[in-house]
Amino acid sequence: MKKLLLTGFEPFLGNEINPTESIVRELDGVKTEHYEIVGAVLPVDFKETATKLDEWLDKEQPDDVMLLGLAAGRNRITPERIAININDAEADNRGYRPDGERIEEDGPDGYFSTLPIRDMVHDLREQGYPAEISNTAGAYLCNHVMYHFLHRAKEEGWETRGGFVHIPASHELALTHSKLPSWSHRDLRDAVLTMIGTLKR
Amino acid sequence: MKKLLLTGFEPFLGNEINPTESIVRELDGVKTEHYEIVGAVLPVDFKETATKLDEWLDKEQPDDVMLLGLAAGRNRITPERIAININDAEADNRGYRPDGERIEEDGPDGYFSTLPIRDMVHDLREQGYPAEISNTAGAYLCNHVMYHFLHRAKEEGWETRGGFVHIPASHELALTHSKLPSWSHRDLRDAVLTMIGTLKR
Amino acid sequence: MKKLLLTGFEPFLGNEINPTESIVRELDGVKTEHYEIVGAVLPVDFKETATKLDEWLDKEQPDDVMLLGLAAGRNRITPERIAININDAEADNRGYRPDGERIEEDGPDGYFSTLPIRDMVHDLREQGYPAEISNTAGAYLCNHVMYHFLHRAKEEGWETRGGFVHIPASHELALTHSKLPSWSHRDLRDAVLTMIGTLKR
Amino acid sequence: MKKLLLTGFEPFLGNEINPTESIVRELDGVKTEHYEIVGAVLPVDFKETATKLDEWLDKEQPDDVMLLGLAAGRNRITPERIAININDAEADNRGYRPDGERIEEDGPDGYFSTLPIRDMVHDLREQGYPAEISNTAGAYLCNHVMYHFLHRAKEEGWETRGGFVHIPASHELALTHSKLPSWSHRDLRDAVLTMIGTLKR
Repeated sequence: MKKLLLTGFEPFLGNEINPTESIVRELDGVKTEHYEIVGAVLPVDFKETATKLDEWLDKEQPDDVMLLGLAAGRNRITPERIAININDAEADNRGYRPDGERIEEDGPDGYFSTLPIRDMVHDLREQGYPAEISNTAGAYLCNHVMYHFLHRAKEEGWETRGGFVHIPASHELALTHSKLPSWSHRDLRDAVLTMIGTLKR
Repeated sequence: MKKLLLTGFEPFLGNEINPTESIVRELDGVKTEHYEIVGAVLPVDFKETATKLDEWLDKEQPDDVMLLGLAAGRNRITPERIAININDAEADNRGYRPDGERIEEDGPDGYFSTLPIRDMVHDLREQGYPAEISNTAGAYLCNHVMYHFLHRAKEEGWETRGGFVHIPASHELALTHSKLPSWSHRDLRDAVLTMIGTLKR
Repeated sequence: MKKLLLTGFEPFLGNEINPTESIVRELDGVKTEHYEIVGAVLPVDFKETATKLDEWLDKEQPDDVMLLGLAAGRNRITPERIAININDAEADNRGYRPDGERIEEDGPDGYFSTLPIRDMVHDLREQGYPAEISNTAGAYLCNHVMYHFLHRAKEEGWETRGGFVHIPASHELALTHSKLPSWSHRDLRDAVLTMIGTLKR
Repeated sequence: MKKLLLTGFEPFLGNEINPTESIVRELDGVKTEHYEIVGAVLPVDFKETATKLDEWLDKEQPDDVMLLGLAAGRNRITPERIAININDAEADNRGYRPDGERIEEDGPDGYFSTLPIRDMVHDLREQGYPAEISNTAGAYLCNHVMYHFLHRAKEEGWETRGGFVHIPASHELALTHSKLPSWSHRDLRDAVLTMIGTLKR
């Protein structure tokens, strides 16, 4: 049985909850047909989050890595196509606001996801879940951890596949933000399991 | 046990499905704690739909009436506050395009819903479903049947309460329209049952 | 030459500016082909604004009344079709938050605008300005003053026509709210003048 | 005086007009303080557009290159940060629909714009035009020509700066598509001139 590292984030930007946090806690330890899932919650902190992710990677040595994040405002599951070499967004939970600096001074401008994102979208839609590939993970923490993973995997020659998936707000979160499209927690969690089902090779 | 007439619409404006149609078919005949539900599907046809609704009203003599419609683009359940005395919208399924004519030549400009819309929103949110009162049911078929019911109930001095509720697209519909926010069919149906639970007096 | 009372609002809901305020100040005293424009700025205050509007109406005795308001988030000029008999929205600038009370205890549920809204939309589009009739002016101050005017005009048997028009955010306002669609101040002001041109009978 | 190649596109995806086409035609031959502008219209054709762009580059040998495109649905000027090595979108005007193929088999996954995008956004906002950096130029023709230019400039060691800027729909286009936010043609053209003003080094 292979091991999947599945990460989410703590709440951020003033939201009180983050659906990815509860999903990864709920799926931590779950065994699917091909994977044992290790769930990990990352801090919304530009100075700490990559270190934290590295600790999980070093400790768990996962076969595959799926990084989850909330995309408040999106209305479907969106596997991300590319991570870009920049931090340029709102302040993180510690109050640090990046100002357009590169993540890796000598790293390439972008890295494509190594997850099978087209197949993931296909399988989600087969299961009745609206989904499409996204061409931007932003320039906040989500992009940051995705770039960090892909850069490290490349530099160290790993075969470990990995990438980022943004999910919509949960109904629970939408109750406090009247403009957000949302899905039920059950739908979000099942959609994540559907994507994990796609990963087997 | 009281009787609730619950209506939905057939598909319209080029959509292949209408989630309200499957919901009312599914709930037809269901008995809740206080109601026996009669589900009816109305045609998207300005010349026929009020007549059809009248037939159901005359035949079933319901205690309360909940008219459902799809609001493609909305991301929450929205009980409507008011029906207005005008038809002014896209063409219906027969190709008739209203041009701003009054529904009832001598009717008032608007009628407020007689359903307990504030309590319905409250109960939906308690159950974890994003909801808010909407101030417009548009000027298409949804508004048309709402106005027709409220005008007739007023003219004939009925105690029957009634009103309209718009619901979001289902995931199934959103799979074919990439811009639509959507809920699962299960969420939509459960939200309708929640509102029916609110109706008891 | 006829007289037109043209009103706007002071800023509200945390916005620092309100484009309708600068437009009515700018057009105050301007003479168009058929009208002398009297520009007036109304307070965002449920307890005061109708009184203020009445003072202007009594003092100026206008032939026609065009009430302007900002609809942050809309992307076109939207003459409103109907005012509804309710206050139910966010807190006003004094901190008063209405809770669903009727504006006029014995007033009708709704009043249609008495401005030529279809012709206004037609003329705006002819001039190259995106426009459409809106079926809801909300349940905040905009709807409140529209209902108040139409109710008083009806009660007192005036021939004075009047109604409400929502306009998009200005570029200036959008600079501080990154999600808002916006038009240049010039476009907004010219669109208002276009609608005033439609009013002549 | 330096030379700027300014490109737009012909209409696409069923739209009858493309505001970038009229802007580049209008600015063709115009001399700003630092630049002579050469305006060129590119075809919406994956098989032809790069060849066409190369012809303009070879013939004009511009000092800088600004590629313009329409982003229907965006409400502000958005200089693009990155081009990605993929074609994956709707069918082009010849009916060719790319299916996720790389633009350059051995090219890097992404290239950052070499235009001063932060300064461009700053100057636009100073001039009163809402603007922000975009992190995705999509995976259609806009991204395609941006990637092509940046790849060629890199491969051939050019000092020529270049990048892509998406602009909102014009009012003229929005008149035919009721959901689109839009700016007046005048605003769009002036915003382009503002960005050209930023380019001087």
